[in-house]
Amino acid sequence: MLYPAPMGRLIHELAKLPGVGPKTAQRLAFHILELNETEVKRLVEAMVDAKQKMGFCSVCGQLAEKSPCTICDDRLRNQKLLCVVEEPKDVIAMEKTRVFKGLYHVLGGAISPLEGIGPDDLKIKELLHRIEEGQFDEVIIATDPNVEGEATALYLAKLLKPFGLKVTRLARGLPVGGDLEYADEITLSKALEGRVEF
Amino acid sequence: MLYPAPMGRLIHELAKLPGVGPKTAQRLAFHILELNETEVKRLVEAMVDAKQKMGFCSVCGQLAEKSPCTICDDRLRNQKLLCVVEEPKDVIAMEKTRVFKGLYHVLGGAISPLEGIGPDDLKIKELLHRIEEGQFDEVIIATDPNVEGEATALYLAKLLKPFGLKVTRLARGLPVGGDLEYADEITLSKALEGRVEF
Repeated sequence: MLYPAPMGRLIHELAKLPGVGPKTAQRLAFHILELNETEVKRLVEAMVDAKQKMGFCSVCGQLAEKSPCTICDDRLRNQKLLCVVEEPKDVIAMEKTRVFKGLYHVLGGAISPLEGIGPDDLKIKELLHRIEEGQFDEVIIATDPNVEGEATALYLAKLLKPFGLKVTRLARGLPVGGDLEYADEITLSKALEGRVEF
Repeated sequence: MLYPAPMGRLIHELAKLPGVGPKTAQRLAFHILELNETEVKRLVEAMVDAKQKMGFCSVCGQLAEKSPCTICDDRLRNQKLLCVVEEPKDVIAMEKTRVFKGLYHVLGGAISPLEGIGPDDLKIKELLHRIEEGQFDEVIIATDPNVEGEATALYLAKLLKPFGLKVTRLARGLPVGGDLEYADEITLSKALEGRVEF
């Protein structure tokens, strides 16, 4: 036991966070001890508060403080354009481009036989329902440019064909094998502008 | 405002941590939201608990749950050997070797005119007091192998000379497991100077 118990416990808890190894956890723990009481309180409250107040939009599936979320509720946005993404963070990435002004649909992942995620595990039924009920002209499938994302995109494209609407995907230009959330705003804007029809 | 307020606040607080940029903060925030209530509670409690319970040992200056700390209190450790380090985390690094069995003294930093840190800002007075009162045979100065650490080591070595005890420092050389070709010139020169016979 190299660390006193409370320190060891903190390092242990921090090391559970994604991308935080033992060295980083130690560094963060030392930093947290160096913060003053107010700063620790602020950090802790932000965590508890976010955890308590954040939920999911019942319409689009995006992380939101209220449901329907501010995007779904915004009548000034293009109600005829729907962008389908895998994760809530992808909505943030898209919003950062300030190019897209339509609505979103968050699938909650991508089809991945390896991880045992099939179409039924994603919000595809909800997507079809929205398309049936809505007045969409175009659906942009903006899944991640990797194997799972591509498979999901193709699956959706086929599924949406009977609806007779325009189904597009983001232009290649996104680094293949990457994650949508890590694309920079300009690349993502370009990809959005150059989207092609299936 | 791309994020709902509680989420934005959490990302903002997380981004204050060292080595955590906006992207990492966002990733951590999403992860925290994905944790269940119990897991968030555990993380938050670990922070609050560590902050409340951890203090500094009044003898050596190490982060500790009680004072004197378990190392200072351990009569089985070599009471004649003192290792001087810059930071509490350096004690952990030394302890991990399981080679050193003496006592520690944490300076709380290194002399750095650029950052306005002079000898009076470090626990040097306390060090001299401990040496006067103690029965040390040897003091190992284990400051960081950089400019500030070297300056501090030389300053201390000079200061400790009158006490007539052995003052040593850690060997400079090639990191074990490294490649010779990747060693910088200075490290390699030091390794050459400090070469030992088989």
